[in-house]
Amino acid sequence: MTREGLTRMTKVELVVRGADARAARELLSTSGASGYTAVSNVSGLGHHGYHEGRLLFNDEAVLDLLIAVMPEDRSDGLIAALRIFLSDKPGVMFVSETFVSRPEYFV
Amino acid sequence: MTREGLTRMTKVELVVRGADARAARELLSTSGASGYTAVSNVSGLGHHGYHEGRLLFNDEAVLDLLIAVMPEDRSDGLIAALRIFLSDKPGVMFVSETFVSRPEYFV
Amino acid sequence: MTREGLTRMTKVELVVRGADARAARELLSTSGASGYTAVSNVSGLGHHGYHEGRLLFNDEAVLDLLIAVMPEDRSDGLIAALRIFLSDKPGVMFVSETFVSRPEYFV
Repeated sequence: MTREGLTRMTKVELVVRGADARAARELLSTSGASGYTAVSNVSGLGHHGYHEGRLLFNDEAVLDLLIAVMPEDRSDGLIAALRIFLSDKPGVMFVSETFVSRPEYFV
Repeated sequence: MTREGLTRMTKVELVVRGADARAARELLSTSGASGYTAVSNVSGLGHHGYHEGRLLFNDEAVLDLLIAVMPEDRSDGLIAALRIFLSDKPGVMFVSETFVSRPEYFV
Repeated sequence: MTREGLTRMTKVELVVRGADARAARELLSTSGASGYTAVSNVSGLGHHGYHEGRLLFNDEAVLDLLIAVMPEDRSDGLIAALRIFLSDKPGVMFVSETFVSRPEYFV
């Protein structure tokens, strides 16, 4: 693939408890993501945190998966904000590279 | 990870309104994707498009997330077709790299 | 993006029939993934397998999407196990790179 005409972006996927999803969405909106996609009612098991010595999620937990895409130069601030957000609650964040066709939508 | 025995592919994720999902699925099938996975009833907020000066999605929009994986040499055509498809409607497309174990399934 | 403070991991996405999801979850847990996220009731069409000459999934199939993230050095074993698991049933596996903020959760 040439990826001609596509623009490199950072994709942040966030898995949080349903109860924390509203706050997470607000944080995304105020921390550099111009939008997001939300998949509700996902479930999860694990992960072990060594500080806790217990599961981060159990199998019955109702979780939300939030997907936000933003320009690279904006992602550092968002990731820092999410790190603080997650510091006192269950949740995981996956950061990866993606390419989009309409970069102006994500600014 | 060695990725030994895995084959590099292009993954296209498409977020469109539920009302556009059928047409999008047909376009995927006729433009180079041998299959797809669909996650229905996702929601979304944003993104700003500078031509519009308004939100691409509002929070109540019922969206579909379609995931298609294909060989790299086939993705350029599909991406071009999706770009045209999206030119007059809301929606975003994320293109990334992935690896699969059974490449013959995606041809 | 600097990815400062983030740790590179391997993400495995698995799409299997709902009927195979329990076995797949158990396999993930016993083969190196400390946790996973599951999106239920997704649908899929395709993909062609040349051995079968038929669709891997039809449009009515009820599928599960399982997402597991693990350290790179653990992913080879998991991928090998999943390859055997998928050898006699429908399903696809996507392997990609991702970065996380709390690597200890995935060990």
